[in-house]
Amino acid sequence: MELTILGCYSATPRVNTSPTAQVLNIKNHLFLIDCGEGTQVQLRRYKVKFSRIKHVFISHLHGDHYFGLIGLISTFMLLGREAELHIYGPKGIKEIILLQLKLGKAWFNYPIIFHELESKESELIFEDEKVEVYTVPLKHRVYTNGFVFKEKPGDRKLNISEVVKAKIDVSYYQKLKQGFDVENEEGLIISNKEVTLDPNKPKSYAFCSDTAYYPECVPHLKGVTALYHESTFLNEHKHMCKSTRHSTAEHAAMIAKEANVGQLILGHYSTRYATLDKFKEEAEVIFKNVELAKDGKVFTF
Amino acid sequence: MELTILGCYSATPRVNTSPTAQVLNIKNHLFLIDCGEGTQVQLRRYKVKFSRIKHVFISHLHGDHYFGLIGLISTFMLLGREAELHIYGPKGIKEIILLQLKLGKAWFNYPIIFHELESKESELIFEDEKVEVYTVPLKHRVYTNGFVFKEKPGDRKLNISEVVKAKIDVSYYQKLKQGFDVENEEGLIISNKEVTLDPNKPKSYAFCSDTAYYPECVPHLKGVTALYHESTFLNEHKHMCKSTRHSTAEHAAMIAKEANVGQLILGHYSTRYATLDKFKEEAEVIFKNVELAKDGKVFTF
Repeated sequence: MELTILGCYSATPRVNTSPTAQVLNIKNHLFLIDCGEGTQVQLRRYKVKFSRIKHVFISHLHGDHYFGLIGLISTFMLLGREAELHIYGPKGIKEIILLQLKLGKAWFNYPIIFHELESKESELIFEDEKVEVYTVPLKHRVYTNGFVFKEKPGDRKLNISEVVKAKIDVSYYQKLKQGFDVENEEGLIISNKEVTLDPNKPKSYAFCSDTAYYPECVPHLKGVTALYHESTFLNEHKHMCKSTRHSTAEHAAMIAKEANVGQLILGHYSTRYATLDKFKEEAEVIFKNVELAKDGKVFTF
Repeated sequence: MELTILGCYSATPRVNTSPTAQVLNIKNHLFLIDCGEGTQVQLRRYKVKFSRIKHVFISHLHGDHYFGLIGLISTFMLLGREAELHIYGPKGIKEIILLQLKLGKAWFNYPIIFHELESKESELIFEDEKVEVYTVPLKHRVYTNGFVFKEKPGDRKLNISEVVKAKIDVSYYQKLKQGFDVENEEGLIISNKEVTLDPNKPKSYAFCSDTAYYPECVPHLKGVTALYHESTFLNEHKHMCKSTRHSTAEHAAMIAKEANVGQLILGHYSTRYATLDKFKEEAEVIFKNVELAKDGKVFTF
């Protein structure tokens, strides 16, 4: 799983900082998560093969999380895209996009499929053989979801020396990987667990931005491999969290600790701070494994 | 009059080229003309004091000319703007902007006044003591206007040695500047033209993008100091003008020549061309005074 941060600052785009957008490479999917103004330029800057994006997940309808979407959709049209594009986001996003396409008399050379969200409960919004995506209801000034991207458990692994010793024909290997007991060449039933190993632990990534400190989201984040959690403020501006419904680095760390995640990635920094080191310091008081998002940074889990 | 090019490329924004946006400094106004995605970053990059922008002119509702507007409006809100913002653009722009502000539950700390355009005739859309702005109907795939920004004629200039010789009291100077005949200290009527000089010739700037070759716009452009005219294509791609309703550099030069403008500025280049020199070369065959727009370039008339 590979996460590329395209932008990790709050509010307004500036010359050297971009609003929220990231690309998750998971089991051969390229998922775009949020799409602030300028995201298509960031995709080009960091050489992401963005024609491969087929699914876009929008957390909420504040501009720094979606104003770049209509531009990306238009660019896909200009580039002659034919593949479907699925957009998951709050109710209203379809109206915004279609109104602009209509008034620009845009032609549709590829299908756009909107999955509008309005549930206040976590729900499964995407699933295929290898991946599941769930929403994580958050607490912000407008309806907002985080997302958890989960690999499904893979096949069991053959313990090949045991398989050979047990005299199992090659034609049964697939069955073994799927967890079945099989018959060997001598007609004996071989127990699956004697000749196979557990699959690799499935990885998962959770994105939580924007949100106030909201422990109610913890059950949905339990044990994820990596959690990106917004940290708009440092403790010195903690008093601003209430009215803006944002979090501090410490809040993010508290969620990471309660959910027992593998790694915490901080981002969505207020542009008032000249340097970011204090975000890491303040979070590490609560939770050990903290990384700072930076525009262009790639995380591999 | 000072024109700052923020972006002068067609279609999609890229790392080193921006879509259409420019700022015209005229008689203490800062007029923003078109507002492609990323315009607010370009305003910061080129250190334009963008809180001074009170009037935005949008030519048409293709994304490369207006997708940056909602972001700029939102940033003005975040920066605590209180001054009115006037937006002149095709019918539909109000619905697009208000829908996005509504769904983002944005608060209004400053008034936005929409002036929606739908006339197919040239019309006066802005006027104060010093400046007039007219639309220039163009020919494109959607309803599109160019704009002409005109200084009004200034006061007549005193020919001070003649004024003294004619024994005119200082209290009459303002009347003289306004063109009136006045009485001198001896009770004689002094003819205005004997003691004043013509005012400086008022300057004017015309913006024409996007458009097919459209000689019908020439009457509105007659004698302007500078004309920015789109030149999406070189002659080698002239065949693409018909379906896209764009112009070549040669087309732009033909309009400049027919309208007898002072200077032609080319822009809105297709991103297919690695260099721009040929645009100037092809235009100069028809019209002599040709300049190439470049992102960040400032023209002073």
